[in-house]
Amino acid sequence: MKPAPDQNEFPDLPLKPIFWRRGRLYIIDQTQLPFKKIIQEIKTAEEMVSAIQRLAIRGAPALGIAAAYGVVVGLKPYSHAPFQEFLNQFERITSLLIASRPTAVNIRWALEKLRQVLDQSCNDSTSAIWARLDAEARRIHLADLQCSQAIAENGLRLLPRQAKILTHCNTGSLATGGYGTALGIIFKAHQSGYRVQVFVDETRPLLQGARLTAWELEQWGIPFTVITDNMAAYVMQKIGLDAVIVGADRIACNGDTANKIGTLALAIQAAYHGIPFYVSAPFSSVDVGAPNGQAIPIEQRSASEIQHLQGIPIIPATWNTLSPAFDITPAELITAIITEKGIYHHPYHLSEN
Amino acid sequence: MKPAPDQNEFPDLPLKPIFWRRGRLYIIDQTQLPFKKIIQEIKTAEEMVSAIQRLAIRGAPALGIAAAYGVVVGLKPYSHAPFQEFLNQFERITSLLIASRPTAVNIRWALEKLRQVLDQSCNDSTSAIWARLDAEARRIHLADLQCSQAIAENGLRLLPRQAKILTHCNTGSLATGGYGTALGIIFKAHQSGYRVQVFVDETRPLLQGARLTAWELEQWGIPFTVITDNMAAYVMQKIGLDAVIVGADRIACNGDTANKIGTLALAIQAAYHGIPFYVSAPFSSVDVGAPNGQAIPIEQRSASEIQHLQGIPIIPATWNTLSPAFDITPAELITAIITEKGIYHHPYHLSEN
Repeated sequence: MKPAPDQNEFPDLPLKPIFWRRGRLYIIDQTQLPFKKIIQEIKTAEEMVSAIQRLAIRGAPALGIAAAYGVVVGLKPYSHAPFQEFLNQFERITSLLIASRPTAVNIRWALEKLRQVLDQSCNDSTSAIWARLDAEARRIHLADLQCSQAIAENGLRLLPRQAKILTHCNTGSLATGGYGTALGIIFKAHQSGYRVQVFVDETRPLLQGARLTAWELEQWGIPFTVITDNMAAYVMQKIGLDAVIVGADRIACNGDTANKIGTLALAIQAAYHGIPFYVSAPFSSVDVGAPNGQAIPIEQRSASEIQHLQGIPIIPATWNTLSPAFDITPAELITAIITEKGIYHHPYHLSEN
Repeated sequence: MKPAPDQNEFPDLPLKPIFWRRGRLYIIDQTQLPFKKIIQEIKTAEEMVSAIQRLAIRGAPALGIAAAYGVVVGLKPYSHAPFQEFLNQFERITSLLIASRPTAVNIRWALEKLRQVLDQSCNDSTSAIWARLDAEARRIHLADLQCSQAIAENGLRLLPRQAKILTHCNTGSLATGGYGTALGIIFKAHQSGYRVQVFVDETRPLLQGARLTAWELEQWGIPFTVITDNMAAYVMQKIGLDAVIVGADRIACNGDTANKIGTLALAIQAAYHGIPFYVSAPFSSVDVGAPNGQAIPIEQRSASEIQHLQGIPIIPATWNTLSPAFDITPAELITAIITEKGIYHHPYHLSEN
């Protein structure tokens, strides 16, 4: 059995949401950020399920990696068991992981990759199968990091060497295998000697910008300023920005982009002020089944996210609220879409690439 | 001495931030809303100063009324004292009130009105002077209510009989003598049988929309939905709005408007979606000394407002934040400015009116 990959494989990363050290798996407990950086060891699949459910680890790419590693950890005690028992445990663990966040497509995608490995190695010993699953999980992690790096290198070409950049939500190390999409471009610029100043939308309702993105920027030593979401237009008007860079949850073939609620507002405000507005995401975010944004359903989240802040009630639970997870930014407002495959400009024909 | 005005003088008002009952002065303690409606009696000038400082009463017009009534209450024990003692107390009390919120121009304005009354009645008995101050304070209150009513009647002409309206911050009964500016138009529409549906921006950082505006709408029985500030563009795109109506802290002669942070974002988003954007304020909000928005200084508030939410820390106190109280909306984005003197349209030449 090859050893699990160590954090040292990516020595230029100041932080990873999930990593191996001496054969043990650890995550950063994101629920305690930004006040405490708590590293939690994940010893069983059940502990990974619990970590996913309580949002100790979150972010679409990070969840895929977490699920794959959850299988690896969970099957390790069965790596010398009879094949049928090994298989039963695989089924049990993958069901638990899928149920932990039913809408997380990256979890299903990663577990499907592991299932294909399993299907192709039925005649091997269980210890050999476990080693292949372990290697596949590491490939998923490595592929995510390589994708982030390629996105960052592409995005870098769009920035001036002194750049004031505004970003929304969390698209950084904590949301991915350890680098990030929109935030990865900012990290790359900083690493490349650019002078970067970042304005961070706090990102109501769950404050991923204030709690996570700002904390990541602090780890990197990049200057940042936290603002409430409704201050972005003020920053554009009074201070000026060189770019707004956001991530994407899903991109339609015509470039219409679903991303964290508040993204549409930023795109409209950037267009009004003549500021470039960039979407940055793995090309796999393109939904070839969606010709435009109308085809993307918008998840409505719990009203309690609006009624509470950090667990404190701010309005009565009986009051009407809206809680869309995403909004749809029309392609016409997006200056460019930055992926690992290249930079695309309006008008977008992404299904042809 | 004429009795102080009773709430019954305005029988169609479901709530007032400040009112007299049987010669005693009361306020709604706004710090406890929306969970508790606590009525606090104000027995001394010092109690009024404390109420203003801890934001139990806030809103520019309401503060002017509160300061005037604070003088009336504070001087009552001296209404049979020698003139010099009465005058000393007047000076002491007005100094305390001005210091309670140094940037509140309405407090200074109201106290200046009382001083003029005092100056004109030096030869009268102190009890007669006190009665005149009492009458002047009531006039200030009544004038505010009449101004709000006139704004509301003008604004009503701009709304369809079924209206989806978005508003920001708190511009209602609690911020004024008991009716409101932007929210007063919504109340008037409801009273006039219009079918109104209101979307309420929560209004970070201090949540005046979620805590106060939504609560007022509930008292009036008007349907409302609370949203985070970054959802307004989603509402415009997916649900549709007939109008956005906001208040104003200060209006330049060319129509550029300073209002609660987040107003500029709404104006840009409304223009993009072709939705009318109305500013509603007393004509006294026009600053004849400000030819345009560049001339309006923007107050920066404490970083702790961004670092905390309802007193709970959400980010470390060492992190950089911005905390502009207001932003400036360019006149070109404002469909109309609604005042008690009439409705104005772009291009605005407000100093000529």
